Order: sequence, then structure tokens, then C-alpha cells
Amino acid sequence: MPSEFQLISQYFGRQSHHDGVMLGIGDDAALLQIPTGEVLVATTDTFISGRHFPENTHPFAIGHKALAVNLSDLAAMGATPRWFLLALTLPDCHELFLSEFSRGLFNLAKNSRVALVGGDTTKGALSITITALGTVPFNQALTRHQAHVGDGVYVSGTIGDAGLGLQVALGKTPPALSDDFAQYVKGRLDFPQPRVQLGLALRGLASACLDVSDGLAQDLGHILQASHVGADIELEKLPLSASLKSLAIDEAWQLALTSGDDYELCFTLSDDAFAKLPALDVPITRIGTISETSGLRFSHHGLAKTMNVSGYQHF
Amino acid sequence: MPSEFQLISQYFGRQSHHDGVMLGIGDDAALLQIPTGEVLVATTDTFISGRHFPENTHPFAIGHKALAVNLSDLAAMGATPRWFLLALTLPDCHELFLSEFSRGLFNLAKNSRVALVGGDTTKGALSITITALGTVPFNQALTRHQAHVGDGVYVSGTIGDAGLGLQVALGKTPPALSDDFAQYVKGRLDFPQPRVQLGLALRGLASACLDVSDGLAQDLGHILQASHVGADIELEKLPLSASLKSLAIDEAWQLALTSGDDYELCFTLSDDAFAKLPALDVPITRIGTISETSGLRFSHHGLAKTMNVSGYQHF
Repeated sequence: MPSEFQLISQYFGRQSHHDGVMLGIGDDAALLQIPTGEVLVATTDTFISGRHFPENTHPFAIGHKALAVNLSDLAAMGATPRWFLLALTLPDCHELFLSEFSRGLFNLAKNSRVALVGGDTTKGALSITITALGTVPFNQALTRHQAHVGDGVYVSGTIGDAGLGLQVALGKTPPALSDDFAQYVKGRLDFPQPRVQLGLALRGLASACLDVSDGLAQDLGHILQASHVGADIELEKLPLSASLKSLAIDEAWQLALTSGDDYELCFTLSDDAFAKLPALDVPITRIGTISETSGLRFSHHGLAKTMNVSGYQHF
Repeated sequence: MPSEFQLISQYFGRQSHHDGVMLGIGDDAALLQIPTGEVLVATTDTFISGRHFPENTHPFAIGHKALAVNLSDLAAMGATPRWFLLALTLPDCHELFLSEFSRGLFNLAKNSRVALVGGDTTKGALSITITALGTVPFNQALTRHQAHVGDGVYVSGTIGDAGLGLQVALGKTPPALSDDFAQYVKGRLDFPQPRVQLGLALRGLASACLDVSDGLAQDLGHILQASHVGADIELEKLPLSASLKSLAIDEAWQLALTSGDDYELCFTLSDDAFAKLPALDVPITRIGTISETSGLRFSHHGLAKTMNVSGYQHF
């Protein structure tokens, strides 16, 4: 069996030249250069088998998603993703797992132009903690606390897909869902795309922004709370994929509002800021409006509608 | 049972004003300002029950040590420690554990002037991954690859104590060890002191530096390999505590060379650089000399001695 050092070296020792990396893997710590005028953006997320992904998830998807959820946090801040550190806990040195996991991880890393600069491998129950580091010009970061009354509430892509994909992964596919649609939402669960380019485009424009990880209603609630405002959401505006549209509409809305793991961005924009948006790599949809009255309200074609929107609880 | 958000807020939400923290816990990521002319130093380490600490370790010590081992990596780079992120995986929301763990963690954080700026809590087998962030002036970082022939090999404090402490913790106390000595080395195991001030003092002086986490022989081996040199170690110079000296000398040397977890610094200095060292907060001892001949050799009062120095294997 290869030693830990051989293991790290074989699958995680890729040392390509990368912007700002003065010293990467192989010392006590990495040395990284922040571009002049920018500040560091740092986030960490743990990813555990059976909790953050079904146990039968392909290792390639695990590698992709573990990095994707962290890059999504950087995207939600409007940051340029640059580097990451990987703390990998494994029950054993299973080469096939490592090979596929690292392929999924580095495929996304390469596409997102981020470099692995440090890590730690440990023996134990499968668990992946990634710390992602990015940079953003001073005062252009996207935060949660500046949503204003009258701002539009927007969401990127479509939402609720990953929640439906989880039903598929757990063998609870709704009978109404076709095989093609089931496969589509399973792909959305396994391969979330961090909205990095959108985050960059929103710099200096969005009044608030976050990524939808625990469910749109709960996550939007964080913006409302931090900004001391409320919001009115028009259910008919929620951007739904064809897969979700093939379900009963109440079921689709429920998934769109409460299921997590979509990693789309939810953000607020004044009408002026919206007019200044450059061309985007992903569709965005206005789903409602920020209001002075606190709380989250729903309507359907102008009629108030009550929704049960309790979100994902980590404990 | 409190929710994850309440839990984070109660024990980890301490938001005191801290240098360079533009935005701390509570958004998708932290925003951190690097001092002008300095580069970022980043490291991550996982800390698992039964592997990195005995299962009966007091939660206060777990909190201390999880942070200490990361600050030790920053110290080994000569970095000023500044911030950290905490990924905490817990089997349940046990308030007593959280209270003591966070007390140990924040006690060291306060003494070391580092701020918690982000984190993630998850349900699962107890596991703590901390990412520590520091800064160091451009070109003053301490690395591993510049040890020169003729440099002295130094180590801080005393070594082998934590290895002996582990024997005590596991109920395998050597019969020769007194209760006082046993208690001392148990304290060395549970409460390693990251050598931050020493690391700062070595900036621009040490030709190589790292922290002793896996055993002196193995860790020094990393310096030798990276610097393409060898070393001659004089066993009688190894700095041993009174606890280790109360054992048979061969047993003491074995612990000093091969047991991990001491978190002392091992470094190399030219005679010129040694003469320039400022006053230090911890004793340092010259234990040998860097040589051109690769490999690690041991002697006792000038006579060559063979030692079995295989180090800690993570897998």
C-alpha cells in the first residue's frame, strides 16, 4: 500500500505554474500573493457521505461537487476564485476512488482556474473539507445586508432541480417523472455549476447576493434578515426546468422554494443596476420585489398564497 | 435542541473587532485585508478523535490543540497568524462539549491574536478541520529547501514529550515514570504551544524551518530532501525534559527522534545567522550539522550509532 506521502504526491501533487502561487503543496503552508487593491475572500465547507451526497454517488461527482459548493460561495461574494486547500479523510487508500475523485476535482479546478495549494489526508470516515480562497477589489464584494426596498429579487438558472435529483438518487423518483427528466435532475444534483462569471458581473451592481444551498426561501430569508427588509415573491415567476414543470405545480414550487443544493445565485438589484448588467452566461429571472414589511410573502397571479417553506436543517 | 444557526451563533459567533477583518462570520465568505507588502500564508489540518487525540481527551484540550497544530504550521513559515476557519463535524449538539471545546479554542485564539472568520458545522463522526491564515513579508517566509552545508540543525524546547504523553493517555505509562512526570508529558500532549514568536524571530535568518509533527527524524528528513543535503545528529545534544531523562536513555532518544505531536520548530542556521538571533521566548538547542552527504546519521560522543527512525504514518 502506498504511503500517505506517495498518495498525496500521486493524485494531488500536480504543480502547474499558477498565478499568485509563490509556494504550493509540500511545505508547512502555501505562500500566496493577493493582487494589489484586492482583498482576500475565504470560505470553508465540509462534504460528508450520506449527508451532503447519497452514498452511491460516483467519486468523480463527489470531487466535482466538493469543490463546486465552495466556489459557489466565492461566486456569491463576487470574487475571482484563485486557490483551494483540501482536507480529505478516507477510510482507506482506495485507488479507484482517489483516481476518480481527483479527476472530478481537478476537472472543475482547471475549468475554474483555481489551484490546489495545500491539504491534509487522514484515515477515517469519508469526509471532505475544502477551503476556497479568492480575491475581490476592495468595496466591490457582494454581501447580504444592503438589499433596498423596491429592488428586484432575482435568481439564476432554474431552481428545485437538485432537490428532485435527490429523490431520484434515493430511489424515490415521482411516478410522473420521465427517465430523461430524472437523468437531467440527477445531473443537476451531482454537478452543480458555480456561477462564478455571474458573480463577477454582479460586482458593484447587486445590492445583496448569496448562493442557494439550503433552499431559496431560507437563503433569501438571510438576505431579508441582514438587510432588515421583507420580500414579495410571485410563484408563477419561479424559473423551473422542464423536469420540474412535469410535476404538479404545487409540488414543483415546494421543491423550488425549500430544497437545497441548486447553487444558483439569489440576488437583489435596483432597476438602475439591472439596466447596467452586461451580457451573462446564465439566464436570470426576476421573481419578486424587496418590501419594507418584514417577512417573506408569496402570491400567485396577484392572489396571496401560503407556502410551507422551512429549509434544510444541518442538525 | 438548538438549530445549527443558534449553535454557531452561541458558541462561535464572537465578533470582536479584529485587524484586517472587513467581514467575518455570517456571509457566504469572509473578506480579509492583507497588509501591504505581505503575502498570504495558508494551511489546513484535520483533527480526528482516536487518531489525532485519544478519545478521552478533554474537549478544552481538543479545542486548544486543533487550533495549535495549525498555528504551528504558520509559525514554521515565519508568519504572523491572523485568521482561521473552522469546519466542525459533530455527532450531536452536545452543549457541554461545545462549551468546553470553544473555550479551549478561543482561549488560544485570543492569546495568539487570531480571529475566527468563517466555518461550517455538520453532523457526523467528530472531526475538526481548521484552516489557518497568516501573513509574512514578501521573501521573508521560512521554507524547507535552502538548508546549506555547515548550517547548524536546531530544535526548540524539548522533544519526545508528547509521544511519552500519549503512552500515559493510553494507560501505557512506563513503570519508571513518576506521577508528576506523567502529568507533565500528558500536558505537553494536550496543550502544544505553537512557536509563533520563534518563527517571527527566525524570519530572514533560518535557512530552513518546519514544525515537528510526525517525529524529528522524519520531519528533518523533509528539510534534507528538499535542500538536497544530509545531516549529522549528536544524540547527547537532543533536548530532553526531566520526564524523558527519567527513562532509559535509548528509550528517551527513540521517543525524541520518532514520536510526533511536539510541535516544536526544527530549523537550520548558519553561524552568522545564529549570531544575529534576537532574544527568544523559548530555548533552542543545536543538535547537529548539515552535511553534503545525503541521509541522516547519528552519533553518541563522536561514535556512530544506528537508530531506527521510521516516523508516523498517516495511513
